[in-house]
Amino acid sequence: MNILYIFAHPEPKSFNSAMRETAIKTLEDNSNNVRVSDLYSMGFKAVLDQDDFLQRKNTDIFNPFLEQMTAGKEGTFSEDIITEMEKIKWADFLIFQFPIFFTGMPAIMKGWIDRVFAAGFAFSPVKQRVYENGLLKGKKVMMVISTGAEEEWYSADGKHGDINELLKYITHCTFEYVGMDVHDTHFVFGAGKMSAERVNEELKRYVQRLDSIFTQ
Amino acid sequence: MNILYIFAHPEPKSFNSAMRETAIKTLEDNSNNVRVSDLYSMGFKAVLDQDDFLQRKNTDIFNPFLEQMTAGKEGTFSEDIITEMEKIKWADFLIFQFPIFFTGMPAIMKGWIDRVFAAGFAFSPVKQRVYENGLLKGKKVMMVISTGAEEEWYSADGKHGDINELLKYITHCTFEYVGMDVHDTHFVFGAGKMSAERVNEELKRYVQRLDSIFTQ
Repeated sequence: MNILYIFAHPEPKSFNSAMRETAIKTLEDNSNNVRVSDLYSMGFKAVLDQDDFLQRKNTDIFNPFLEQMTAGKEGTFSEDIITEMEKIKWADFLIFQFPIFFTGMPAIMKGWIDRVFAAGFAFSPVKQRVYENGLLKGKKVMMVISTGAEEEWYSADGKHGDINELLKYITHCTFEYVGMDVHDTHFVFGAGKMSAERVNEELKRYVQRLDSIFTQ
Repeated sequence: MNILYIFAHPEPKSFNSAMRETAIKTLEDNSNNVRVSDLYSMGFKAVLDQDDFLQRKNTDIFNPFLEQMTAGKEGTFSEDIITEMEKIKWADFLIFQFPIFFTGMPAIMKGWIDRVFAAGFAFSPVKQRVYENGLLKGKKVMMVISTGAEEEWYSADGKHGDINELLKYITHCTFEYVGMDVHDTHFVFGAGKMSAERVNEELKRYVQRLDSIFTQ
């Protein structure tokens, strides 16, 4: 399978980076092809703005939606966006791995979504190309998330609430919106203070999860 | 009242900018003090990284949580973060206005949250200073959101689902988490294609909403 691994953690020696390295090895050992978008090390531009477009449909008023729809037709997205779009076209499966910041993606990854899942490329409300007809239909996706909070905080009766409910704005309104098939999120709770033993257990558990999906 | 208005839209001639201008005038006419963080025009740095810290607690491994906790104690956040924190300390009420991008804040505003609502400043899980004991307790907050989608899409039976449920990761897990009192979000649905008449109606409706909260 062709797998695009989108990763957002600033520290190469972090537990998250160890997860990523383990994943890439596991996926390749299972004869998958892996491409990585390591957003921090790429210095990925997080903010959707005028520079995303090589030409403008309307130079008087900047309307992001209009400019994305036009750039998709004309091929006038900036180079960094085109590169990511090509990776998505190539991929059968997208994995988004990140430490949770305020029950969401770090801004650098949210910006990747804002800029790369562009109108006209990932979805098109004008032509009802959303949800079951989304433009990324046929692709699969999974999130891999570490949280500082313990699991009980993110349970239905916990202080935060059920994390799968809280993340529907991503799993449903983002991933299903663009037509993708969403696998259950892989969580590592209480990741702020783990013993070496727990780290090893979590890496093993992640390998098992990946094997269960990607072994051919 | 002292009001901090956090705004994220790249176009000064947009409907969102008209909303912001109307709001500032309305709030000041009601004898409130208003400070504005216009994130696009400030070129606000969206990405939490090593440059957020003038000194490092641990220069070997970058742990964002640890560095935020330390920078709060030592006063060693970067200048742009300190400036925003001072605005928050000054404010009684925070208003976040933005066009919804994938059922969330544009990345530049998510990054403001990631960087400025820092551990040790806005919350401290170590000392249980979260939720009813959050460090921003006593302050009030409201979101003002425009959506391209029509209201029915964001209803309980709609394609996306109930928007107030979907946004609990912000209203509850972010704003209530840091101790703030959350006012109902002010929505403008179907904002992508509005007649001049509808624009005027929406501006009037926004003034009425603001008057209902901020008239002294």
